[in-house]
Order: sequence, then C-alpha cells, then structure tokens
Amino acid sequence: MYDAITTETTIINGINRDELLGTFEAIAEQRELAKMQFRATNQWVDGAVNRTSVKDIYGGCQEQVREKPHVMQKDEPAFLLGMDTSANPVEHLLAALAGCLTTTLVLFATAEGVKLDEVTSSFEADASMLGVLGIDENVRMGFDEIRVTFDIKSQAPREKIEELLALAQARSGVFDMLTNRTPVAIRLA
Amino acid sequence: MYDAITTETTIINGINRDELLGTFEAIAEQRELAKMQFRATNQWVDGAVNRTSVKDIYGGCQEQVREKPHVMQKDEPAFLLGMDTSANPVEHLLAALAGCLTTTLVLFATAEGVKLDEVTSSFEADASMLGVLGIDENVRMGFDEIRVTFDIKSQAPREKIEELLALAQARSGVFDMLTNRTPVAIRLA
Repeated sequence: MYDAITTETTIINGINRDELLGTFEAIAEQRELAKMQFRATNQWVDGAVNRTSVKDIYGGCQEQVREKPHVMQKDEPAFLLGMDTSANPVEHLLAALAGCLTTTLVLFATAEGVKLDEVTSSFEADASMLGVLGIDENVRMGFDEIRVTFDIKSQAPREKIEELLALAQARSGVFDMLTNRTPVAIRLA
Repeated sequence: MYDAITTETTIINGINRDELLGTFEAIAEQRELAKMQFRATNQWVDGAVNRTSVKDIYGGCQEQVREKPHVMQKDEPAFLLGMDTSANPVEHLLAALAGCLTTTLVLFATAEGVKLDEVTSSFEADASMLGVLGIDENVRMGFDEIRVTFDIKSQAPREKIEELLALAQARSGVFDMLTNRTPVAIRLA
C-alpha cells in the first residue's frame, strides 16, 4: 500500500501533471503522435442561424471517436438581421481565441508546477461593415485589431505569470492562425 | 388594404430582403452606422474547461444590449487531457469560419433575390503538436491549411451559386482574419 504514495498522481489546475508530462515525452519520442486532424460539418438552418457539429478527431495515431457530436449554433443579433438565439460567428472566433490562450496557459503552468487560482480575460475588437458591403474597398472585412487583457490570480510571482502568458501567446494555435496567414481552400461540391 | 401588396415584405432565405437592402442603403448614406465593436469575457473553470460570455455589441451608432449573455464553453477531448464536455478552441474556430461563410452567402443571395434550399459545408484541418510542445520550431502552432467543401441546393444556375460562394469568401470577416494577418495585442492586467 505504501507504493501508492510514490505513484500518487499530482493534479494541478485540474490537470494530471504526470499524464501531461508523459504525453509531452511520448510525442517527443514518437513524433507521429503529434499529428492531428480536426473536422466539422455545418448546416444552414434559416436566416442567420446555422449549426456546426464536431465529432471525430484524428490524433494520437488513431481516430478519436466521440459518442455524440458537440454542436455550436451561430445567429446574429437583431440589428444584424438575426434572431439572437446564439452568439454570432465573430464572437465564436473570440471564444476560440480566449479558449486557446487560456488552455495553453493552464497546460504550461501545470507542466511547470505553477498553481493558478483564477484566469479571466476580456476581449475587444473593432470592425466596420464598409468593406463587407462593398462601400469602401480600403476597409477590411474582419477585425482591425483584437485587444486582450488577462487577469491572473496565483501565488506565483508576477514575473512567472508574465512568462507563462508570453509562452501561451507564442504557443497558441488560434493566436498563430490569426496573426499569421492560414490558407483556407474553398470549393463547391 | 390593397396598399398592403405594394408594401408587402419579401422574406427570402428567412431574411427580410427589404430590411436587408434598407440596411445596406442606410449604411452607404451614413457611414458611422458601419462601425462595430464586439466584446467577450472569458472565465477559466478548471483544467481544459473555460467559458466565454458575449453580451453587448456596439453597432448601428448605439449599444446593442442583449438581455442575457450567450455562453460558449470550450474543453478538450480525453486524449488532449480534457473531459470532452464541449468542442475545443480550434473546433470553435472552424464553427466561426463555417458560420461567417454561410451567413455571408445567405445574406448576399437574399440581396440578389436568390432562394437557397440547402447549404451544408464540411471542414478539414491538419495540425501538429510538434510546434506547440517546442519539439520542432519549424512546425507552426495552428492549422497548416483548412479545406472547405460547400454543398448548395438551389434552383439558381450553378454559375450563380459559384459567383455567390466567391462573394461570400471575398466578404467574410472570419475568412479575411484567417487568410490575412489580424493584429492581437495581449496584456496582463
């Protein structure tokens, strides 16, 4: 029974640190494990309402099959001619960025043994419809800029938290996809 | 009562076409109406789970205040050390892209009086963890590429549908943000 102490798992920030470090090591040793493919299908419902389903993911050298899909609904607020039944597409983009930065921060904090008490963040993004409507071709379609403020509570020194936030930014997939070009190939079936 | 015929609103694709064209005209005449600001707040819950809330939007020269926020939860599947309670951040990004392309297509089809019967789309995106984990600095953090296939059913000729899909791509905010650089400024409070 005393063996249980030495094999005790360490849960930090809700993540099993041993399992996390084990995953890092396994991927370093067998690089094929790092390959992933994400898939989604989208169905237009009516007007500004549409739903995206995600189910299977390829990763860890196998198909990762969920029992049920997760569904994300998008709509537009009334002033953008929708019914406001859910967040709109660009708000889903902010949710993706928020989630990726936060989870990347939490994982690297856990890997370094840093316990986080609270992580909140706020996002602000300016846009204009002048480009979308073809009124001014000098105005881009998407956000001019996204401003993010993180508020992180932890016993760790501020320098450590700043270092972890910089690491989260450097290693976040969604941050990378927004700040660098991501090819998107669209075809009609 | 006969006047009702000439003022009858035309609903195409679940969108009030008169209202849509009226919005386009109003913005062309008063460009300030085109300005928008989107906001979101994110709260880490535990482990890979975090939630983004969106409530107010600035647009149409006023604060557009929702009664209740919309909440988007993110988690990771088990093989990425989460509990799979919801889609993950990069899947939310695919949902954002799917939603933006679809809604932009539906709005421009409506503006041109083209009735759409079905719009479905599928998304595939390859990624590798080698960059994220710092194993190979030549591997990017985000998707290498996103491949999108649209399946559109409509009585309109295929050339018209192709033209509308090309317009949706050209005018989509999320497509623009992914395929061109979007500045993201992150700071610690």
